[in-house]
Amino acid sequence: MYPHFSDRMTNMQPSSVREIFKALSDPSVISLAGGNPSPLTFPARELGEISARMYADNATAFLQYGISEGYAPLIEKTKFRMANKFGIGGADDEVIITSGGEQGIDLVLKVLTNEGDTVLCEDPTFVGALNDIRSYATNIVGIPVDDDGMDIDALERALETEKNVKLIYTIPTFQNPSGVTMSLERRQRMYDLAVKHNVIILEDGPYFELRYSGKHIPNIKSLDKTGHVIFCGSYSKLVAPGLRVGYLIADKRLMPKIVIAKQCQDVHTPVYTQMLIDGYLENYDIDAHIADSLRIYTAQRDVMLSALDRHIGNRAHFTRPDGGLFVWCTLPNGISGRELCVKTSAKKVVCVPGGSFDPSGDEDKAGIRLNFSMPTPEQIETGIQVVAECLAEYL
Amino acid sequence: MYPHFSDRMTNMQPSSVREIFKALSDPSVISLAGGNPSPLTFPARELGEISARMYADNATAFLQYGISEGYAPLIEKTKFRMANKFGIGGADDEVIITSGGEQGIDLVLKVLTNEGDTVLCEDPTFVGALNDIRSYATNIVGIPVDDDGMDIDALERALETEKNVKLIYTIPTFQNPSGVTMSLERRQRMYDLAVKHNVIILEDGPYFELRYSGKHIPNIKSLDKTGHVIFCGSYSKLVAPGLRVGYLIADKRLMPKIVIAKQCQDVHTPVYTQMLIDGYLENYDIDAHIADSLRIYTAQRDVMLSALDRHIGNRAHFTRPDGGLFVWCTLPNGISGRELCVKTSAKKVVCVPGGSFDPSGDEDKAGIRLNFSMPTPEQIETGIQVVAECLAEYL
Repeated sequence: MYPHFSDRMTNMQPSSVREIFKALSDPSVISLAGGNPSPLTFPARELGEISARMYADNATAFLQYGISEGYAPLIEKTKFRMANKFGIGGADDEVIITSGGEQGIDLVLKVLTNEGDTVLCEDPTFVGALNDIRSYATNIVGIPVDDDGMDIDALERALETEKNVKLIYTIPTFQNPSGVTMSLERRQRMYDLAVKHNVIILEDGPYFELRYSGKHIPNIKSLDKTGHVIFCGSYSKLVAPGLRVGYLIADKRLMPKIVIAKQCQDVHTPVYTQMLIDGYLENYDIDAHIADSLRIYTAQRDVMLSALDRHIGNRAHFTRPDGGLFVWCTLPNGISGRELCVKTSAKKVVCVPGGSFDPSGDEDKAGIRLNFSMPTPEQIETGIQVVAECLAEYL
Repeated sequence: MYPHFSDRMTNMQPSSVREIFKALSDPSVISLAGGNPSPLTFPARELGEISARMYADNATAFLQYGISEGYAPLIEKTKFRMANKFGIGGADDEVIITSGGEQGIDLVLKVLTNEGDTVLCEDPTFVGALNDIRSYATNIVGIPVDDDGMDIDALERALETEKNVKLIYTIPTFQNPSGVTMSLERRQRMYDLAVKHNVIILEDGPYFELRYSGKHIPNIKSLDKTGHVIFCGSYSKLVAPGLRVGYLIADKRLMPKIVIAKQCQDVHTPVYTQMLIDGYLENYDIDAHIADSLRIYTAQRDVMLSALDRHIGNRAHFTRPDGGLFVWCTLPNGISGRELCVKTSAKKVVCVPGGSFDPSGDEDKAGIRLNFSMPTPEQIETGIQVVAECLAEYL
């Protein structure tokens, strides 16, 4: 009889992605599995200087409790930067600092969805969002993606037929795991549909500033005139993920409930990490820093696409992302991504099976996700070669 | 029609305690309202030294993602210290690092309770826990406390009559807001009842190491032989709250679900803050540090009790806490704590109305909470004098 778990958690299992993450302690293993930014991009020296000044100036400022909304100067800088640079957030919007982007997703789910309500999302999508949605006992309906992002005709049908749709969760730019980017026309249609059906869009944008080719496509939040779009942002991929600093930009009618949910969850994000990011934005040029990161990531992506072209070619469909951290490989003939990943693991190359990202939980989804931000160019080359060898066993 | 909030959040309002916290920017106001530890107790110099070494040694270790369970050395040190010093946690228990004690409460609620289930707790109790319980649409039943803690006869009746009781939430030592400590005999009875009814006890222990008089009473978790007690701990009151580092100690059968819930909420607690606390435990004597804090707080408590004796005397019942941060004053003749706090506020002394801590939400509860950790001795003297003056208007 012991223990009784809540119904919402009874069937939840640990994220296979994060379990893989834990298993990767063997240094001889090549990981194409992570979602981590490259430590080469961390501005460690600059952060160390800011930190030293913070301790010298007034440590009590960050050792004492803070307020749930977040550290006011960081809120202001985030609001200003996102509005001025990307048109994200207007006069009716407010910013709350979250403990990473994941918390932003969690808070929105808590505030907007009841158990049994429906969330629409890309299929495949971010495993952390899927687990979060499941953990609220919310119904998940996946909408297919192609190389231009979510299929908006399918979205429209779902909005018309599914019951109690409360949220559209989307990563429109450099989507995780597919790497694809939604076209502007589709973004506009998604927004118009959200307004028509009075459904909130949660636009998750952890990677959108990591663009290696092509032109910026306006964020869905920048099209928002009615408060139907919540933007979930993060400093994880721009500064450092271990600090866990993200934010939500949402209509002021939504924000009070989000703040209460945040209070209940962790009272506030650590003041230290907020002040550190604020100090970085104050004293350094984050855009120049991002440009440096882009040089590193562009080379890594190009190595991976080149390896995929040479070793896999047209034997499987893989995406050609203009940014972000991931390439998605759709496997031919319904080959199980899980089985393929078991094969590559035996050869010390770890990828994430596509099933992890499947809204319906299909463990044998015919796809795998390949990360190019963490491995070295040599590891990417060897890793893709091993993936190709294992794939060849089926073909 | 816009926006649709979830049912669980529709009626939730911001915590009045935290709202007061925000309003306290006027430096001429005396606050007896906070729950903050004194900044005089923060080991800022030591933390600054540890931080500088962390940046010099290997910043990537804390700038990169970590694992959801927490930073392994901090887990080990926490487990060892709590087991060796207090008998908290045995061979069947595991530790997870949380983003403060509040998150520990949230995770336990998410994992163990369904909407409509019942949580039993002290009446009055911690407003952060009450709001958290409400945010899961869980039914709250308050059990009265006297100067020896929760009334266990009333607890037994509630366990026999209330439906779907899944959790007993208790702060047995230096309870917030009442300041009272549960006797060992009551702790044992509570544990035995929990086992009999197969209900989990969440023992919240943020203050129990802050003892100024009397002898340590074994924690409920130290009596646990069956896994029915989860201990929620925090470094907020022992090191610094702004860092948001707490922990849960729970049976290994419970922990996997708690870890998943944590993954969904913020992936992991910032690695920096965890390493900082770990470095403090590694390089400094936290027990000597706590002893220093006790000297400060003992003096503050004594000033408050002396002021209460002189200014209020037997015109109201106030508790005489052996530790923690709070005195609770029960108002005679059903005087509304809310009304009294409005009166004191007009004279620039802020206290928290007892209604904030009322499980049933009675805003006019006849009590107020008085904090002695933050104000100076002079502020305590003046503050209590003002409270007494306002109270005298009724008597």
